[in-house]
Amino acid sequence: MNMVDEARRTRRGGRGSRRELRSAINTTMLPALKRKLPLVEPMDEAHVERIDRASMDILEDVGVIFRDPQAIADWKSVGADVRDDDRVHLDRGLVRELIKSIPESFTYHARNPANNLPFGNDHSIFVPMTGAPYLRDLEDRRRGPTLDDLASFHKLSHMLPAIHSSAHHIVEPMDHVVAHRHLRITYSSMKHSDKTFMGMTTSPKNAEDVMDMCAILFGEEFMETHAVVTGNCNGNSPLVWDETMLGAMRAFCKRNQPVLCSPFVLGGANTPASTAASVAQLNAEALSALAYTQVVRKGCPAIYGHYLSTVSMRSGAPMAGTPEISLMNFMIGQMARYYQVPWRTSNTLGGAKTFDAQAGYESASTMMATLMAGANYVWHSAGWNEAGMHCSMAKFVVDAEQCAMGYRMAEGVKWDDFDEALSAVRDIGPGGHYLGHPHTQANFQDAFFMPELFDNNSIEQWIADGSQEITERALKHVHKLLASYEEPKLDDAADEALRDYIARREREIPAVDALNNEH
Amino acid sequence: MNMVDEARRTRRGGRGSRRELRSAINTTMLPALKRKLPLVEPMDEAHVERIDRASMDILEDVGVIFRDPQAIADWKSVGADVRDDDRVHLDRGLVRELIKSIPESFTYHARNPANNLPFGNDHSIFVPMTGAPYLRDLEDRRRGPTLDDLASFHKLSHMLPAIHSSAHHIVEPMDHVVAHRHLRITYSSMKHSDKTFMGMTTSPKNAEDVMDMCAILFGEEFMETHAVVTGNCNGNSPLVWDETMLGAMRAFCKRNQPVLCSPFVLGGANTPASTAASVAQLNAEALSALAYTQVVRKGCPAIYGHYLSTVSMRSGAPMAGTPEISLMNFMIGQMARYYQVPWRTSNTLGGAKTFDAQAGYESASTMMATLMAGANYVWHSAGWNEAGMHCSMAKFVVDAEQCAMGYRMAEGVKWDDFDEALSAVRDIGPGGHYLGHPHTQANFQDAFFMPELFDNNSIEQWIADGSQEITERALKHVHKLLASYEEPKLDDAADEALRDYIARREREIPAVDALNNEH
Repeated sequence: MNMVDEARRTRRGGRGSRRELRSAINTTMLPALKRKLPLVEPMDEAHVERIDRASMDILEDVGVIFRDPQAIADWKSVGADVRDDDRVHLDRGLVRELIKSIPESFTYHARNPANNLPFGNDHSIFVPMTGAPYLRDLEDRRRGPTLDDLASFHKLSHMLPAIHSSAHHIVEPMDHVVAHRHLRITYSSMKHSDKTFMGMTTSPKNAEDVMDMCAILFGEEFMETHAVVTGNCNGNSPLVWDETMLGAMRAFCKRNQPVLCSPFVLGGANTPASTAASVAQLNAEALSALAYTQVVRKGCPAIYGHYLSTVSMRSGAPMAGTPEISLMNFMIGQMARYYQVPWRTSNTLGGAKTFDAQAGYESASTMMATLMAGANYVWHSAGWNEAGMHCSMAKFVVDAEQCAMGYRMAEGVKWDDFDEALSAVRDIGPGGHYLGHPHTQANFQDAFFMPELFDNNSIEQWIADGSQEITERALKHVHKLLASYEEPKLDDAADEALRDYIARREREIPAVDALNNEH
Repeated sequence: MNMVDEARRTRRGGRGSRRELRSAINTTMLPALKRKLPLVEPMDEAHVERIDRASMDILEDVGVIFRDPQAIADWKSVGADVRDDDRVHLDRGLVRELIKSIPESFTYHARNPANNLPFGNDHSIFVPMTGAPYLRDLEDRRRGPTLDDLASFHKLSHMLPAIHSSAHHIVEPMDHVVAHRHLRITYSSMKHSDKTFMGMTTSPKNAEDVMDMCAILFGEEFMETHAVVTGNCNGNSPLVWDETMLGAMRAFCKRNQPVLCSPFVLGGANTPASTAASVAQLNAEALSALAYTQVVRKGCPAIYGHYLSTVSMRSGAPMAGTPEISLMNFMIGQMARYYQVPWRTSNTLGGAKTFDAQAGYESASTMMATLMAGANYVWHSAGWNEAGMHCSMAKFVVDAEQCAMGYRMAEGVKWDDFDEALSAVRDIGPGGHYLGHPHTQANFQDAFFMPELFDNNSIEQWIADGSQEITERALKHVHKLLASYEEPKLDDAADEALRDYIARREREIPAVDALNNEH
């Protein structure tokens, strides 16, 4: 193209340095997103209070089952009204008093302090998907994952700029016994990336192991005052929390580490067939768990969570990217801000079986809604497809680029060079073009986002390049990233201590199946 | 699935009526969307005034070229300062005075009054793409389109509930001589759908023909007081309007028919490399054309338009779905509301060569942004791919379903059955499920949107159904729609008059090439 050729001629640095610029892979993590775009808030104050009142009525009148003797004892110790052994009726005054001590914001500490993240309020962080029992691999084959595959995803998380965390079992390492898996997963998270990560909550004891390994890496005392890892605890909607999740929750809370308190919504199946009422129930569930974290340890960080889908009444299948999920996200954001608690959502969800256009629509709709909703902990931000049944390597890197694009949008409009840019309009005048103008030369790299994985060339150029659809291009990018991966080495002493810990625990823990029910 | 089976057992009407319900294709047009979701407005009042001031400075100091003797004469007649033959320097007072008479809202009248559309303010309508020189057909083959292909797209527009208009040359009918094409395109729009449509503006004379044909269909007098069609006039950014577009604009304005005044932005190439400054320039360009419509005919409807892309400085290619396009949409919405003029945007744009995940991401990102921006005339809402070089039949119906989903989201949260739905929470209690509850039975069809073209089944079911990706499923749906199409017959007299008109004009117009430069 003529205009671009001219720009190329006049640009500083010449052809060699541009080629270098283009071929270098930027792996520097973006800081935690500080959102400046206004949020979408569909509820006025009266609506917010209506949801709050409905949720508090549910907590008081219907109650929540905590299927766990320790939790029941804890609730009794703070004077909660327990009926029928395990049904806890929570007074709204007690709930409000308890959640008051949840920190509105805190800092995530990574083993590389350059990757620490301010968290809460206007900050958002993107965290990859977890929990996939299958992957679509470098050849786009769907198969059971190995520990090596998990390592690859941890490496990718480490290298992708808009991904702020390496997560835990992005895929399930099927080549390792279930009972020992959490140890290997945790080690892989710690070893292959120096970003923050997530900790397994597949059982209370597994969660204790994660805490012990974090203590080796960060120091027991450091953890007492610093968040270094995130756990997730799913509720069983409607209105039940089980022993596994509550035990894992306690393991995290006791060490002052944050957990996501995540009711698991299948809208219409385990909530009413109503967007607003589903939010009221979910809000009650989240509040009950958030309150419980403060019974366990007053002041420990906790995050308002949820997993949202709506159920197709035609097939019973959970759906993603639907309008009601977007609306629920907007509403939940308002509720979390009302309670002054940071909150989690799920990003880039989709039900497609391959990385086809359906996956693209679902993922982008979800991302736009979660950004407009102002979520803080944006989980499942890369790789999710097939309702979480597989993590796709191709989708992983495309989603991550989408996060970078969403990041840019959520930063809002830049005005710093407005007057300078306007003077270019005077210089160019009617009918000219801007490619050779000094302002363009100085700003073209940053002014407009250029996605690398989207092809915007002519069809002739695209055919000349091999007629590659996005899956093929993305997998080439994965190859390139993994080939250029550099391990951020663990400190030798910590590494040895972690390996010793794993060896000891693998001797101690019988190699039998354990539960694994996170989402 | 057990829960769904139970719901099936207990649902009213039994298996037969449900099957019927499922197999029937709903083709009833949704009313014009009345948005209730709050909009994303990144600018405060000072920012809006800053853009306004910058644009007015551009109009006064830099000026706009109207490359058209008639327009220059018109401008002189209202006292504008014309320099260098065709450069019009517009005083801000004159611009503000002129645009004041543009109606903030009006009604689109279709030949079937049931398809009339309130327009402006909180209303949005979805209009399919136009202008594609290629299509991807029922076999997903990319080829040159025919008049029959165009008819198929007009039929689909007619049948898809969230599509409010049938547009004009959705694809270019290559089997017909260019000079006569506008006549056949207009007739196809009028014949195959009784929704509103768009009118060709490929030359002033072509636009006159469209107006004459509209007069046959609606009556000359009726058109004097009712909008029945929409034209589009592109600007040549920066700051130029040409003779073709201005002549076509006059043809529409004189008959009191609305035109989209659309600067054509290739961000970074024909605007500065700055989001805010690009909006300031575009705003100046749009204002200059909007003002001109009122010079031609005071009080005639006119729509603030634009076409937005950003240019990749790596390849020179225009890009879609980028964060800066979203931000520009938000800002332009604010400017249009500031001037109290309805506005147009472009939906579901994408640069992918096939209907792959790239197309999905680009389209959904764009749709979410345009909905949050509050655009009134949401053009290019179905079919667009390959930067507008082809219209995809598969994408056409998927985009239309996305519009229906976006429609639902933009309607906001429904509270009417909130208390009733909450009482279901009391009925079900902890640990139950809602599928058999009377509230669910009564509301499951409407509570949560169920996209037909997304597959949310298990992979086993999906394989059993033939492992179809979305393109294949969508094309089957197109087949089904076209097979069940029923023509909304034109009144015999009008039909004959239209055919006579076309026959006469085809005798009069030499069969040589004419310009065709709409986007």
